[in-house]
Amino acid sequence: MPERGIGKLVILGVGLIGGSFALALKRAGAVGEVVGVGRSRPSLDAARRLGIVDRCFVFGDRWTSELADTDLVLLATPVGEMPSLFSTIAPALGAGTLVTDVGSTKQDVIAAAREHLGGALPRFVPGHPIAGSERSGAGAASATLFDGRTVVLSPIGATDEAALATVSACWSRCGGHVRLLDAGRHDAILAGVSHLPHLLAYAFVACIAERTHEDALDYAATGFRDFTRLASSHPGMWRDVCVANREALRRELAAYRDELARVDALIARGDGEGLLTLFEKARAAREDWLARRESTGRS
Amino acid sequence: MPERGIGKLVILGVGLIGGSFALALKRAGAVGEVVGVGRSRPSLDAARRLGIVDRCFVFGDRWTSELADTDLVLLATPVGEMPSLFSTIAPALGAGTLVTDVGSTKQDVIAAAREHLGGALPRFVPGHPIAGSERSGAGAASATLFDGRTVVLSPIGATDEAALATVSACWSRCGGHVRLLDAGRHDAILAGVSHLPHLLAYAFVACIAERTHEDALDYAATGFRDFTRLASSHPGMWRDVCVANREALRRELAAYRDELARVDALIARGDGEGLLTLFEKARAAREDWLARRESTGRS
Repeated sequence: MPERGIGKLVILGVGLIGGSFALALKRAGAVGEVVGVGRSRPSLDAARRLGIVDRCFVFGDRWTSELADTDLVLLATPVGEMPSLFSTIAPALGAGTLVTDVGSTKQDVIAAAREHLGGALPRFVPGHPIAGSERSGAGAASATLFDGRTVVLSPIGATDEAALATVSACWSRCGGHVRLLDAGRHDAILAGVSHLPHLLAYAFVACIAERTHEDALDYAATGFRDFTRLASSHPGMWRDVCVANREALRRELAAYRDELARVDALIARGDGEGLLTLFEKARAAREDWLARRESTGRS
Repeated sequence: MPERGIGKLVILGVGLIGGSFALALKRAGAVGEVVGVGRSRPSLDAARRLGIVDRCFVFGDRWTSELADTDLVLLATPVGEMPSLFSTIAPALGAGTLVTDVGSTKQDVIAAAREHLGGALPRFVPGHPIAGSERSGAGAASATLFDGRTVVLSPIGATDEAALATVSACWSRCGGHVRLLDAGRHDAILAGVSHLPHLLAYAFVACIAERTHEDALDYAATGFRDFTRLASSHPGMWRDVCVANREALRRELAAYRDELARVDALIARGDGEGLLTLFEKARAAREDWLARRESTGRS
């Protein structure tokens, strides 16, 4: 990354993550001009008023001519939209334009890049900042979203070392801790620790909402609120993740359904000891995780 | 409740809820002396230093002689311990001593009270404050825990009106909003909005901990943290709840397992539209709930 940072950045999808990336780079003085491309004109205008982007286009506009002199293009849409975006940008990229993404799945995004990016493939750096919020849209963007968070980069054999170094430096300037991780391993791990809990939270709220009268939810408290927070996440983004990572996700879901079958059997026979052992194991595992997390300064 | 409040209060189980009840009544100037009975001497000493109790006994001590001149006895142990506590206190209660509890299940506690309390049954007011934390023990107690929270009272046919009025007034002085709810309906509702999410969170963490290497959890973030918060709850308390309310809980669990089977089928056939519909329905239901909750001043 040049000392002065990124000269011109184009963000495709100016939502929570794309917007926060722009704000964090601006906070660091590590970006010159930011151009945003998005779906909704009012949302883009809001992003401009919030100082997230300097100029903006809706996807229907002619914006690909912006790419020739762009230093970095960030794909920050739901992953299902990335194949067609790769195809759209490929012929318009400058000879030195780098491309990166923030998709929650990596193998599908890499496959799409291989298919569509052509000669620009070495300048594509697959990425995923492990940070987020159940809030979505540019209005939820924050310059501090990535502070202390892990940012996964999953370079492939073709990836140019200098491109990787520049994208990595950008994320460091955004406050993130970069870790390199193979795309397949990323997708397998995230299926368990992120994609599955989102799915379970959505399914839980849908199930409860169908089964109970509204006034039953009057008795739901802070435990319910936190357990279901993920069910307020961006539906389209998570639809795409579930479809893209379906094999790994179904493996995790199958393991969880087996666990629930065991738990149901414990309850059915009133096996208090078995339940206690399970609950103590879970609590200990979570407390260990919290302690490790705290020791590395994350919250 | 007398104008000056409760003269002498005995708390059986000086943990998060029992301790918070004492602190909240003290904050309101609504209690004279508080005597605590608990399992662990160091924990009781801590409760005394924190100003939660004025005097204390471990369960092995001779403490039942304290009950003759006590105005109110609060059972705040895991529900599995309540039958033997009812049996222990019944012969020692004063003629005007009221009894109440904070158990997360009501039908089992009422059945135990019917079996053991004898002539004192009309002076027993079954209760459940819908407030808590994944933290447990007297050290986690707080005078503000019940502020703005719903407190369910589930009187039975035998319950004395004056006893109900006094216990209700105590909870109001603690900051709670009292609602009367039939015990069976309480247990059915709470099975869905509280007991099931606790069970699911425990099962999720146990499942993940078994399947993944420790370093996989390095990629777990704030979503994981909030989704699993309930898995840090008191294992013994929740073991008792699951056993006590097993029929209603198994009904809720079965419905959820059916929902997961449907979700798995959607993913298996890559049905993005079906997933999107489900996720949007869940998000809308949760946002509605949050809005209603906010409109009633709860957080």
